[in-house]
Amino acid sequence: MIAEILCVGTELLLGEILNSNAQFLAQELAQLGIAHHYQTVVGDNPERLHKAIAIACDRASLLIFTGGLGPTPDDLTTEGIAAHFGAELQEDPAIVADITEKFANRGREMTANNLKQALIPVGAAIIPNPLGTAPGILWTPRENVTLMTFPGVPREMKRMWQDTAVPYLRSQGAGQTIFHSRVLRFWGIGESHLASQVNHLFDRTNPTVAPYAGQGEVRLRITARAATIAEAEALIAPIATEIQAIAGSHYYGQDEDTLSRIVGNLLQQHHQTLAIAESCTGGGLGSSLTAIAGSSSYFLGGAIAYANTSKIKMLGVNGEDLERAGAVSGIIAEQMARGIQQNLGSDWALSITGIAGPEGGSPEKPVGLVYIGLAHPNGKTEHFEHHFGANQQRDYIRHLSSQSALNHLRLAFLTNL
Amino acid sequence: MIAEILCVGTELLLGEILNSNAQFLAQELAQLGIAHHYQTVVGDNPERLHKAIAIACDRASLLIFTGGLGPTPDDLTTEGIAAHFGAELQEDPAIVADITEKFANRGREMTANNLKQALIPVGAAIIPNPLGTAPGILWTPRENVTLMTFPGVPREMKRMWQDTAVPYLRSQGAGQTIFHSRVLRFWGIGESHLASQVNHLFDRTNPTVAPYAGQGEVRLRITARAATIAEAEALIAPIATEIQAIAGSHYYGQDEDTLSRIVGNLLQQHHQTLAIAESCTGGGLGSSLTAIAGSSSYFLGGAIAYANTSKIKMLGVNGEDLERAGAVSGIIAEQMARGIQQNLGSDWALSITGIAGPEGGSPEKPVGLVYIGLAHPNGKTEHFEHHFGANQQRDYIRHLSSQSALNHLRLAFLTNL
Repeated sequence: MIAEILCVGTELLLGEILNSNAQFLAQELAQLGIAHHYQTVVGDNPERLHKAIAIACDRASLLIFTGGLGPTPDDLTTEGIAAHFGAELQEDPAIVADITEKFANRGREMTANNLKQALIPVGAAIIPNPLGTAPGILWTPRENVTLMTFPGVPREMKRMWQDTAVPYLRSQGAGQTIFHSRVLRFWGIGESHLASQVNHLFDRTNPTVAPYAGQGEVRLRITARAATIAEAEALIAPIATEIQAIAGSHYYGQDEDTLSRIVGNLLQQHHQTLAIAESCTGGGLGSSLTAIAGSSSYFLGGAIAYANTSKIKMLGVNGEDLERAGAVSGIIAEQMARGIQQNLGSDWALSITGIAGPEGGSPEKPVGLVYIGLAHPNGKTEHFEHHFGANQQRDYIRHLSSQSALNHLRLAFLTNL
Repeated sequence: MIAEILCVGTELLLGEILNSNAQFLAQELAQLGIAHHYQTVVGDNPERLHKAIAIACDRASLLIFTGGLGPTPDDLTTEGIAAHFGAELQEDPAIVADITEKFANRGREMTANNLKQALIPVGAAIIPNPLGTAPGILWTPRENVTLMTFPGVPREMKRMWQDTAVPYLRSQGAGQTIFHSRVLRFWGIGESHLASQVNHLFDRTNPTVAPYAGQGEVRLRITARAATIAEAEALIAPIATEIQAIAGSHYYGQDEDTLSRIVGNLLQQHHQTLAIAESCTGGGLGSSLTAIAGSSSYFLGGAIAYANTSKIKMLGVNGEDLERAGAVSGIIAEQMARGIQQNLGSDWALSITGIAGPEGGSPEKPVGLVYIGLAHPNGKTEHFEHHFGANQQRDYIRHLSSQSALNHLRLAFLTNL
């Protein structure tokens, strides 16, 4: 089975969006062991879509389309495919019912446009879309050609891929030799530094080890080729153990782990609670913590103390200290943490105060200077000074700040264990 | 002149990297007014590259290649192109000198591999690479086919594009007409509903109007073709005005505008301040507001009142009402907003309480039920009930909640103007 990815959308030809769908599908195909030799991007144009399908049918037997399934006139992937293979479109009553129900649930009015999404080629099966109104199709219009369509919205496409396409492809024999990866995640160490420590592993062939970096964290991906996930895991495990031993406390988790999840697990295991006080991150730390379902069992809440008056009113920060040391200082970070700990009666408290820029820096306190306060259950309070760099962007400094705060709490647990 | 972008690299087919080069080149071509109808991704494989070139020559006269110019054996774009057009490769002494000098400057040893990068087809011109060792070529191997090659490294490719390709394309008459777009942004209206209202505009040819949707919002892109940006703007303006009149208060901004920015502008214009109280969003609303540099001039701060006790302690929510109506209710949303307004002395206050899931829903209060409270400067308090859908994901419900809260404040300003 050889696949081709066809992404349909004039917005891709105008460069308005990044083709992240192609990357996702490419990774998924690799994991299933399905070769794909070409990716094609084509605009919302029936004639060009027709030609692209003809070319793809010549060189692949599995055509995977994304985009062009929406309700508007320029969404013409389904029509284009049906026309290419000479099939009629017919309204599918199950899709009509599903769309009608979704509109009713949202309390919005359904328009005639939306019924366009219920038209599918005669003989095609539906790929249900639990997150939106545009279903995809799974269709074998002629011998040696099977095609799948997905909406361009990545969230919907990924869910439909996992729910329907992967089981189907496995049922067709894909995934018998699989590539399986484990991603190890690190915080507080640079990519080249970590790479130099595990350099001897980069020449391995099965599993392979490759570093990559992004959003302030370094990851190592260990990829094994095997017949089953269990066999791949057995190849991966000793390498992972070796790397973890080398990296020490810089290693914080694997795969879908986040610092929020790891910290949440530690709090839960110890039956302890957390409160937070944020200045420059403005809610980013809280948002990160509460991205974890079930975080209400350990996260009590916090204060977004953006203005100085809020720091005094909500956290009892000392006005004179604020005046003397400035809001961005270790003493204020500690007072913020202690204040919210006392206010909400939590075991632990984290605080963040810093200069995210682009304005507000000075020679003494440049953009990127951030203090993180940590109040322990035993009454101890401490602070940590970070310099994330005056040339870094506001969003990035805020992200590094909230994740570093979580990491300090993680390290406090490790030290006390 | 019709272009095609050909990205060469097995790493793209494995999904190891995101194809940001295609997006950059697509944007650049659009700005130069050069149409391109297809993008092709192909692996580091001579036979498949050969076929991709043959197809591209049939449908385009300008072929833009990225990737496969490196020193290793799997970098074979130049060889593949030369073979396709039946040209010999010859070593270019100027490139040899350049590579030799670059290695000397970095104090690194040049290997024989690197001289591979000095081989170019007879008759091709060089596209110099000031940032790396791999130059590109600019070549017209036969009538009606001109091709350019660039390394896959985005930094090098972009620089070479700007330095050499853009002046060349302009000298060939490109850039005399440009494509220029304005994106209009809407909140609180579905894609199909808005599309049905502006349906008559979708058949226009200059400017064109096209809808797209994502992250809960709908956008309409108006694209004009003209000699200058000013002329394009003049074509776009009346269409934008017409759409804004049709969409009314659903229209909130354009291009890089966000609801946070628009709300921030309104607060700043009126010299008013905002405080917030968040439950299910856990800081997401604050994070969104403070993503805007300078937000400290109108955003005072807020409470992340995640646990019920936090709602009582930080916001003075009535414990009996909390017991009776539940934390996710209109009355509690209003009390949260009033509480933080009084606590921080702000003009306005927004609150959010809801069920983001996946757990915690019930038949009466399903996942996706969210109440937004709004306290006005005049003492009025109101709330809004939203049903974002029980099958939606936690992150998405949280995003819709925080953005809807901002939208309610925006609408309150519009009503009071």
